[in-house]
Amino acid sequence: MKYKELRQKVYETNMLLPKLNLVVFTWGNVSEVDREAGVFAIKPSGVEYDNLKPEDIVVVSLETGETVAGKMKPSSDTATHLVLYQKFSNIGGVVHTHSPWAVSWAQATRELPAYGTTHADTFYGNVPCTRKLTDQEINEAYEKNTGLVIAETFEKNQIDPDAVPGVLVAGHGPFTWGPESLKAVENSKVLEECCKMAFRTEVINPEISRIEQGLLDKHYLRKHGKDAYYGQ
Amino acid sequence: MKYKELRQKVYETNMLLPKLNLVVFTWGNVSEVDREAGVFAIKPSGVEYDNLKPEDIVVVSLETGETVAGKMKPSSDTATHLVLYQKFSNIGGVVHTHSPWAVSWAQATRELPAYGTTHADTFYGNVPCTRKLTDQEINEAYEKNTGLVIAETFEKNQIDPDAVPGVLVAGHGPFTWGPESLKAVENSKVLEECCKMAFRTEVINPEISRIEQGLLDKHYLRKHGKDAYYGQ
Amino acid sequence: MKYKELRQKVYETNMLLPKLNLVVFTWGNVSEVDREAGVFAIKPSGVEYDNLKPEDIVVVSLETGETVAGKMKPSSDTATHLVLYQKFSNIGGVVHTHSPWAVSWAQATRELPAYGTTHADTFYGNVPCTRKLTDQEINEAYEKNTGLVIAETFEKNQIDPDAVPGVLVAGHGPFTWGPESLKAVENSKVLEECCKMAFRTEVINPEISRIEQGLLDKHYLRKHGKDAYYGQ
Amino acid sequence: MKYKELRQKVYETNMLLPKLNLVVFTWGNVSEVDREAGVFAIKPSGVEYDNLKPEDIVVVSLETGETVAGKMKPSSDTATHLVLYQKFSNIGGVVHTHSPWAVSWAQATRELPAYGTTHADTFYGNVPCTRKLTDQEINEAYEKNTGLVIAETFEKNQIDPDAVPGVLVAGHGPFTWGPESLKAVENSKVLEECCKMAFRTEVINPEISRIEQGLLDKHYLRKHGKDAYYGQ
Repeated sequence: MKYKELRQKVYETNMLLPKLNLVVFTWGNVSEVDREAGVFAIKPSGVEYDNLKPEDIVVVSLETGETVAGKMKPSSDTATHLVLYQKFSNIGGVVHTHSPWAVSWAQATRELPAYGTTHADTFYGNVPCTRKLTDQEINEAYEKNTGLVIAETFEKNQIDPDAVPGVLVAGHGPFTWGPESLKAVENSKVLEECCKMAFRTEVINPEISRIEQGLLDKHYLRKHGKDAYYGQ
Repeated sequence: MKYKELRQKVYETNMLLPKLNLVVFTWGNVSEVDREAGVFAIKPSGVEYDNLKPEDIVVVSLETGETVAGKMKPSSDTATHLVLYQKFSNIGGVVHTHSPWAVSWAQATRELPAYGTTHADTFYGNVPCTRKLTDQEINEAYEKNTGLVIAETFEKNQIDPDAVPGVLVAGHGPFTWGPESLKAVENSKVLEECCKMAFRTEVINPEISRIEQGLLDKHYLRKHGKDAYYGQ
Repeated sequence: MKYKELRQKVYETNMLLPKLNLVVFTWGNVSEVDREAGVFAIKPSGVEYDNLKPEDIVVVSLETGETVAGKMKPSSDTATHLVLYQKFSNIGGVVHTHSPWAVSWAQATRELPAYGTTHADTFYGNVPCTRKLTDQEINEAYEKNTGLVIAETFEKNQIDPDAVPGVLVAGHGPFTWGPESLKAVENSKVLEECCKMAFRTEVINPEISRIEQGLLDKHYLRKHGKDAYYGQ
Repeated sequence: MKYKELRQKVYETNMLLPKLNLVVFTWGNVSEVDREAGVFAIKPSGVEYDNLKPEDIVVVSLETGETVAGKMKPSSDTATHLVLYQKFSNIGGVVHTHSPWAVSWAQATRELPAYGTTHADTFYGNVPCTRKLTDQEINEAYEKNTGLVIAETFEKNQIDPDAVPGVLVAGHGPFTWGPESLKAVENSKVLEECCKMAFRTEVINPEISRIEQGLLDKHYLRKHGKDAYYGQ
């Protein structure tokens, strides 16, 4: 099997989605890139997780998105993953799900406010929500333009995608990423938990505002960067 | 065992309801039709899923609803299934549950707005809610009239039941359908998830309106019809 | 073991509470009466479900509440069960839990409106909420007076406890009952589900009113009484 | 292994957190003190529960917080546990989690009102929420100052930490404690359940006020103190 290690890894990180209760049916996909080899591996389109096997994982070109290994059709969201790898040069893994709390915020077309330290431990600021795509963008190259509108959201708002590794696509759902696919999956779970807690926070106290910059800095920086001291 | 294959299949799709967390106790039933044979098979009335066996599945006439095979009484909702098979000529399976999110919308007597792509992937527009039955309709032939008011809802609002494979019956709960019972069960799960996410979407942003027609078209049509490109 | 059959049965119905997700820790108890023998059997006080054994079940007098068999102290709520058996002459089993949705309504000191057929299948009308106990009632005989205020609620509002087999005790939580303890446990689960769905129904449509009497009659009476036709 | 018994116990109470659905990933930690030995044992920092072993538990000085046994770095929250053991002289175990309902109240920066008997059985009054830390407190000694602001909250409001064994830290999450770590974990679960039920209670009845003092007294005192009569 070509790209055996990469496909095995992407198989395993895909299988975390049902384990972490982030998907029902086939509503999600994980990919991981090998930038040196110029490819990324991704879940095949519409395959149930119960039936998924490592050899079903499809490997596509990082330049063209065309299949270079695997017999199945890659995820219908492959073009979105491709754009994200091209635009966000440090990322190594991408995840898309329809996890219900994150979808609820995406459908509400609202960015997720940073209300607490659980959020700050992973996302260094609010998680943005994209603008809606135009009909032309939808009709011409929907999946590619989904990637482009994500990149546009980070550029326009001067958000660093390495510090805020996720987004809510308006009317659709979340994408997350990370240095590798395992971290991207973890970020997907964190986003789901933060969306759940933010919903409840706003109901408990409709006047609440996001946490102070000092606390945001403290929690993000105790886990990330040169002065991090969390973990072993 | 007469109609062995059909009953085995209907047994299996019934058993998906507890597996997908769509029922507690006996609160649901699945049927599948064999139009050539002029019959459909359905869960027996009031039998716990833990005790259900393939031979318990009852086969009834597609014309009269009378039992043609099986020793048990068919579901009390059999007459509703019968009307749906008669009125919606393309469908092959029908599901009724009391899944909690869909029941909540049905009790609230509101149609389910199409707020996102998760909805659009399965339902090509809002999922309608029926009018309430009159006392006369309830007293004369409750289950049959439940089927008739579903059909009336689709006719009056010119909704294609093949494109919107589900309904909320006011004050009661959801019915879904599909080309076969397996797809009908999946549609029941999708409806439950969409009801959950729509509830949350409205709390997060009370001013939200349904997704644009362009995005609805895109997602429905990438999964359905001659230009579909999702899946293998 | 004295009253072996009764204690075995009450052990089994107690063990359904964690299985049906109605309790955490020791927050619930089930009893069943043997009116001929003049006793009822009930869970011991403060024993974890994981450790519960049939011989731990305590048998107490239906007249005095005093222990007649078993080495452990009976549930601290025994006096409440006793009053219910004395006041509601047809019931055979009683259940108390702190199931979260029912507790939420009890804490909100609101009766549970009958919003749909799921409710009507079991409860023939709104599930009432008691008045609060006075300080004197709390201090003199708290558990006994809890039973008395339940009975008072049904008498004052002329509700038939056989037709509405449950209540919300203000600031506390639910009690349910039935012809035997198994049915009482099922009613406890139905009440929890209906409390959950009613909460959501009111958020989805704050203007909603309870279902029409005709539909309430239909669903209750197709499952109960001489003209019932649900089940085998 | 030094402090073998203490580390084994703290290992086991840490493992209850995922079992009780109080944590995802590494979002929690349990400690227990041995006041005679002048040490407490605590979870190592950033270790997944699936991989945790008894020998990974770290033992630190009750005076300085420095490691006295174990090869791993102790939890990043160790300094908070240390202050709590120093300030609250009767407690034997401390738990911190990011359990979602408690975090939602903490993020909303509201104390948890005592709405019912489930609350009163464990917490003898409202569970307070701390003030926010100043930037200086965050930057100088964040974890230590988190402990100090908890102690300040109890002192200023004259709350007995033995009678209200938990707190919500503003913008962060819950800490609970108890005479030993097992009880502290149970209190963490009770707090989570009460936060969930209080949220729902307020939505069901926005006009609700906390339970009467008489009922609060009754439930707390039937489980605690010299006149307790709950349990065996």
